[in-house]
Amino acid sequence: MSAFDELMAFQRETEALAQVAGRLGWDQETMMPRGAAEQRGEEMAAMEAVLHGRRTDPRVGDWIAAAKAPDAAGARMVELIRRDFARSAAVPVRLASEIARVTSVAQGIWAEARAKDDVAHFLPVLTDVIRLSREKGAALVAAGFGANAYDALLDDYEPGATAASIGAIFDRMRPRLVALREAVLGAAHQPAPLKGTFPREAQLALSRKMAEAFGYDWTRGRLDLAVHPFSSGSGNDVRITTRVAEADPLNCLYSTIHETGHATYEQAVDQAYLLTPIGRGASMGVHESQSRIYENQLGRSRAFTGWIFDEMTAAFGGVGAADADAFYAAVNRVTPGYIRTESDEVQYNLHIMMRFDLEQRLIAGTLQPADLEAAWNDRFKADFGVAVDRPANGVLQDVHWSVGLFGYFPTYALGNVYAGCLNQAMRGDLPGLDAGLAKGDAGAATGWLAAKLQRFGALKAPAETIADACGFAPTEAPLLDYLDAKFRALYRL
Amino acid sequence: MSAFDELMAFQRETEALAQVAGRLGWDQETMMPRGAAEQRGEEMAAMEAVLHGRRTDPRVGDWIAAAKAPDAAGARMVELIRRDFARSAAVPVRLASEIARVTSVAQGIWAEARAKDDVAHFLPVLTDVIRLSREKGAALVAAGFGANAYDALLDDYEPGATAASIGAIFDRMRPRLVALREAVLGAAHQPAPLKGTFPREAQLALSRKMAEAFGYDWTRGRLDLAVHPFSSGSGNDVRITTRVAEADPLNCLYSTIHETGHATYEQAVDQAYLLTPIGRGASMGVHESQSRIYENQLGRSRAFTGWIFDEMTAAFGGVGAADADAFYAAVNRVTPGYIRTESDEVQYNLHIMMRFDLEQRLIAGTLQPADLEAAWNDRFKADFGVAVDRPANGVLQDVHWSVGLFGYFPTYALGNVYAGCLNQAMRGDLPGLDAGLAKGDAGAATGWLAAKLQRFGALKAPAETIADACGFAPTEAPLLDYLDAKFRALYRL
Repeated sequence: MSAFDELMAFQRETEALAQVAGRLGWDQETMMPRGAAEQRGEEMAAMEAVLHGRRTDPRVGDWIAAAKAPDAAGARMVELIRRDFARSAAVPVRLASEIARVTSVAQGIWAEARAKDDVAHFLPVLTDVIRLSREKGAALVAAGFGANAYDALLDDYEPGATAASIGAIFDRMRPRLVALREAVLGAAHQPAPLKGTFPREAQLALSRKMAEAFGYDWTRGRLDLAVHPFSSGSGNDVRITTRVAEADPLNCLYSTIHETGHATYEQAVDQAYLLTPIGRGASMGVHESQSRIYENQLGRSRAFTGWIFDEMTAAFGGVGAADADAFYAAVNRVTPGYIRTESDEVQYNLHIMMRFDLEQRLIAGTLQPADLEAAWNDRFKADFGVAVDRPANGVLQDVHWSVGLFGYFPTYALGNVYAGCLNQAMRGDLPGLDAGLAKGDAGAATGWLAAKLQRFGALKAPAETIADACGFAPTEAPLLDYLDAKFRALYRL
Repeated sequence: MSAFDELMAFQRETEALAQVAGRLGWDQETMMPRGAAEQRGEEMAAMEAVLHGRRTDPRVGDWIAAAKAPDAAGARMVELIRRDFARSAAVPVRLASEIARVTSVAQGIWAEARAKDDVAHFLPVLTDVIRLSREKGAALVAAGFGANAYDALLDDYEPGATAASIGAIFDRMRPRLVALREAVLGAAHQPAPLKGTFPREAQLALSRKMAEAFGYDWTRGRLDLAVHPFSSGSGNDVRITTRVAEADPLNCLYSTIHETGHATYEQAVDQAYLLTPIGRGASMGVHESQSRIYENQLGRSRAFTGWIFDEMTAAFGGVGAADADAFYAAVNRVTPGYIRTESDEVQYNLHIMMRFDLEQRLIAGTLQPADLEAAWNDRFKADFGVAVDRPANGVLQDVHWSVGLFGYFPTYALGNVYAGCLNQAMRGDLPGLDAGLAKGDAGAATGWLAAKLQRFGALKAPAETIADACGFAPTEAPLLDYLDAKFRALYRL
């Protein structure tokens, strides 16, 4: 076997084992009996140790050095393995295991602290996680990954992006988003929310129909319930989850559409890339662009909500909205709120920008963990005009920092920016799209996305993936124009 | 760290990974979307390769050689690891991977052949599996495991047992079982089967109640549906499965009780043994003794079926039997039939003896694969007095040989023998047992089994595990006496 073939055979097993570890995570959130938690921790740790051992196996370094890729896809695979190998090698084993150990404990402590609204309970372990993340960032910088620790961490989730490049986009977005938010919240016309009780089984049945409308392949996936919906897996086993609140059917339906966006992306990747480093989404930002365009630009469009209105009327006997226009307005309602995950299209990115700024300062060392709560509350008051009422609605609301995900938050907003670009390009190519959506047929859109973007997996760099699909370099302008047009019309401004 | 501690730490990770592989198997039979089958094959193979690599890791040999166990449990752990290491080392890597490759294909081919009633379709791959199993047996014999290839294979499932020792038991059982079978089938009085349709959800609800009656801990397990019911996992994540046929509620209920027997055994093992080589059942035969005593001596007793009769009457409005006595007779009905898994307490062991004899000849080379179907049909006619009507009801009915499980079948009958012994000892210790069972309370029995046997896991050798629990060396006599008494009374002989 050539060095390239040896590398690929070894990597294929590693990818298969990574799928197993991912499925174990799925099981933990959907199926696992609660008494199994501690044992599961050991099982997950053992899997992680196996994966880490393979990713840093010295033979991988030798094979990479000698590998001659037969084509562009092969060259990209080698490039991604080389990058992963170099990043893994840059972090000392001692540091990697300390991070694994501390973050596994920290998530539980965070959950307790959030339940008790007790920041002090979380602070010691958060301080440790931040210290370890800074050490990891410094080690990566020393190995040539990024100009500073934050960029080095961000590179895990959005290769090629930097705090400066994302910050520049966010700086251009903020004034228009703030202006739109104030106009909408101050508008004389305010849509009413849905009212009623919506039985669980009917919500789930409609969720399945929506996933299908967006092209989800049930022969290679399944839908289950989870406290925090997620999608999981690559290739031919890509599972989605949703949640049900009987007073709020939109939570279930739009969670499902969002996760369907992530999942169909994975399902649509070229089968030739199965269990290779390019057999999955290109980055977190590109992934989020798919979930967001499904959920928002398509799923919350006037055309598609008209179809949902009819479906819900049939399923529930009524939806608690006067007509399809009132339903469309209710689906897109903008209200003040503390929680990022419950936010609307207008305010969501403002939540992200705030976290992006705070976490950069934590990693730079210019904000001390002990001062984080005050900084959060000040910033929230400044950005949203409301004082945080309790830590669970403030600095304790997100799991990310407890598990060391610094540099992850901005990829959500980047996904929105990418979704804006893709929506503009797609609508240029598909003038009849709304006519299909109004009949519950998203096939033209999902077909366009599969052909222009999804099938390539991680063959191209993230920004290139978006630019090639759109036919132009991504900017924030299409998203902002779309939001202005949609919400000024909805709020009669 | 001492060599013993190093060995235990390494083994603990191996045990955790084995649990992961087991849960992947559970997922495959209960949750996996069908389009994922091929990818799952690669994932399973990758896990097996990791496990095989760990089991044959040269460091394990070094640690074993240097390990000083601090106590008897530690000594037993080292002994089991040494045995596993030596057996793994005895089989050449080339042969182990060929067996893995061929059996993974053979199971699919067997399923196709059974569906098409086409022995010729199965024969080539069966021939390969037999050839490879004989090679494996020979390699194990050369390394000192067993006097002949069959004994060497059997040792995987029932350490310490031999074809001679099991054959002697079977030879003593056969005449009495044949006589009982003929008497029962020829009896003037023949019980009627249940009649009716029993809704699926109510069957599952009652199944859960039965699992609970037998002490299943839901905080460390769950119940799902599977085509072929099984239990899975050790320690604090032990899952059971059942199946539902609306015309035949006994199938669902007794599958559940059977799997509950396996599962509570695993759940009852001392928590101090978690993720160690003794943190699981002692052998296949001992495991089967638990599932069988739950299912038969307890679950099919007059006392307990009286309780089920009341429960079913409440759940279904009626059970299709005149009274509790008629229900007890229906539950224990003996009828001619081709299929081992659908057999009754009287005939089951005869099905096993036939397979035991045939598979010994296949491994010895005195029966050629091409002659197997004829040998099966001749033997079935001789033992059961009926001609096999089609291969799916004959030589193609069991999955075992397709996956190379030679030496596995006799452990089922050995489990029945052990269950007979345990039942005798238990009833001697618990004179009030039936009074509890009649109220749906099996706690005295499950408590006795947990204290006398289950909590020890694999701390002792299989035969010792049974003998210590019973207070006497196991023989077939208690089982045969129990069957004679029960069925002669039921059939008014």
